[in-house]
Amino acid sequence: MSRFFSEKYAALTPYTPGEQPKGQTYIKLNTNESPFPPSARAQKLAAAEATRLELYSDPECRDLVSAAAEILGVGADEILFTNGSDEILNFAFMAFCDKEHPAVFPDITYGFYPVFAELNHIPYTQIPLNPDFTINVGDYIGVGKTVFIANPNAPTGIALPLSDIERIVRSNPDNVVVIDEAYVDFGAESAVGLTRKYDNLLVTQTFSKSRSLAGARLGFGIGSPSLIRDLNTIKYSTNPYNVNRMTMAAGIGALTDREYFAKNCRAIEETRAWTSDELRALGFTVLDSKANFVFAAHDRLPGKELYLKLKENGILVRHFDSAPLTNFNRISIGTTEQMQTLINTIKKILEDMP
Amino acid sequence: MSRFFSEKYAALTPYTPGEQPKGQTYIKLNTNESPFPPSARAQKLAAAEATRLELYSDPECRDLVSAAAEILGVGADEILFTNGSDEILNFAFMAFCDKEHPAVFPDITYGFYPVFAELNHIPYTQIPLNPDFTINVGDYIGVGKTVFIANPNAPTGIALPLSDIERIVRSNPDNVVVIDEAYVDFGAESAVGLTRKYDNLLVTQTFSKSRSLAGARLGFGIGSPSLIRDLNTIKYSTNPYNVNRMTMAAGIGALTDREYFAKNCRAIEETRAWTSDELRALGFTVLDSKANFVFAAHDRLPGKELYLKLKENGILVRHFDSAPLTNFNRISIGTTEQMQTLINTIKKILEDMP
Repeated sequence: MSRFFSEKYAALTPYTPGEQPKGQTYIKLNTNESPFPPSARAQKLAAAEATRLELYSDPECRDLVSAAAEILGVGADEILFTNGSDEILNFAFMAFCDKEHPAVFPDITYGFYPVFAELNHIPYTQIPLNPDFTINVGDYIGVGKTVFIANPNAPTGIALPLSDIERIVRSNPDNVVVIDEAYVDFGAESAVGLTRKYDNLLVTQTFSKSRSLAGARLGFGIGSPSLIRDLNTIKYSTNPYNVNRMTMAAGIGALTDREYFAKNCRAIEETRAWTSDELRALGFTVLDSKANFVFAAHDRLPGKELYLKLKENGILVRHFDSAPLTNFNRISIGTTEQMQTLINTIKKILEDMP
Repeated sequence: MSRFFSEKYAALTPYTPGEQPKGQTYIKLNTNESPFPPSARAQKLAAAEATRLELYSDPECRDLVSAAAEILGVGADEILFTNGSDEILNFAFMAFCDKEHPAVFPDITYGFYPVFAELNHIPYTQIPLNPDFTINVGDYIGVGKTVFIANPNAPTGIALPLSDIERIVRSNPDNVVVIDEAYVDFGAESAVGLTRKYDNLLVTQTFSKSRSLAGARLGFGIGSPSLIRDLNTIKYSTNPYNVNRMTMAAGIGALTDREYFAKNCRAIEETRAWTSDELRALGFTVLDSKANFVFAAHDRLPGKELYLKLKENGILVRHFDSAPLTNFNRISIGTTEQMQTLINTIKKILEDMP
């Protein structure tokens, strides 16, 4: 910290992203990326846009918004695109939380929520999960705070049914409920269809997982026109040209190539089922995931040890070194070949144990 | 504003970006873009990266940082890349300003500074320019606040000599001085060379103007390692993957194609000189610009009228509708052909006047 750094951020502990190794090649199962390349249409449109970069991108993202509005079945004034979904989550913390509207979210969830709250000096409560790592819905009924729920949750992968999400939204009519659907496309139910019924519901999604565009940085929020207007006030006071031309073009390509999207989501679901079965057969506890990762623990093999041994063997997974997660690893679902290698490697590690 | 919008932003007036028209084709001289396409190398590297978007971008931007460090003659720990220079300016307001360290900047300058200050609830003072639109350097000597100076300034285009910048930096040793060099490559003197001498100096630049990458969104800051660490604390608490893969690749291409960069900067300077002479010959007052635009007023033709008449004729310039700027227009420097068309059109408008 320099002697100039504002005291208001002196206690801030930034988010720690997963390892992004350079040089050595790993089977990368640590940051929930898609194992599939972006849609050929996305690649082509993005590359074409590289010739026109001397002109600013459209701050209103009109072409992308109109493609998305049609495909997602919402109005153009009900959607806002951002530089990854981290940006719209931060905007939501800024716009809809303050001392009178503190934030609430599970104690085990996306690790960025407490960072956004600290950054914006917003008081927040973290509610413990049930012992089986599910969210206790009752804790959020009428809680009277700005609610952030990742559905499916991370790093557990466990999803709430839409009926539970609706109960939470309906019971907090004077507070915004943000449903972070980064992982929704792999088998969970989206709350997008509820945004016209409830003016306090904001749904956020990302192109980083199911649409293979993590490296393009594109996320969005869907909500009532008045919530979207508020988020635009923040955007235009922060970074009006927040989405670049190439990413907008890639987004249009990925959205309109619906067949490729559906095929990849199905493949991840099938490989997730296979991987979960194999891990369970090897003695792992595997939470019931609706995301593109599984969260798994073995009672004879501490989580950190497995993480390190896999890394030695060229496979990266994500380990969270804090109780009660220490025994688990979060393993992204890759291709069938990658997961076969993972299972074979784990078998070998287990066999080599004393 | 929705009923959920936090009161802390109720009074926020967002920045208004210049028009980005769709559909109709204008000669676009309103947002200081380059009239030249991005370097062929930038285009090629960016397009190649479009095939690898399923993987996150490197949050540390290592390849780009190392290319930039070599070319700009600074250490890798003295530079931070952001999603346009708006993002690093916002980070600087966040990191280095608060109630004890209010901000100070000219009353006529980049219109985003007061928005960033309001967004972050930072008290700020706007110091009037001299009547000839120059900055009165004496106003900033030992001012004891966090200083933001655009050099060259916008929308005037007038630059301060490096010796004046150094006096301001040296006389405020306990406050950060931010020199916003968005337009420095068109004939002004950069303060980058002073960042090792003064630990309170942060220089920001952009790829949007001289490097033809406005649509890619890339900016950066250069300062002491401890200032850069502070800004990284903000970045990693806001949006760690703030720069996407394609933009990083385009940035490397643009930086390393030094010949193309130099040629384009020279062309803009020459066309600026020609345009200024022509406008003066037509009775305009043209401020002495070191940027890729000129700021010009005519005593018989009100600024707004000229703006509207040019727009009717297919030419967009930027008009600021607030005193004492109302009589001026900010005109970006395009190609020689575009500026010839501009001059011919203005001649016709003047001839048609009663």
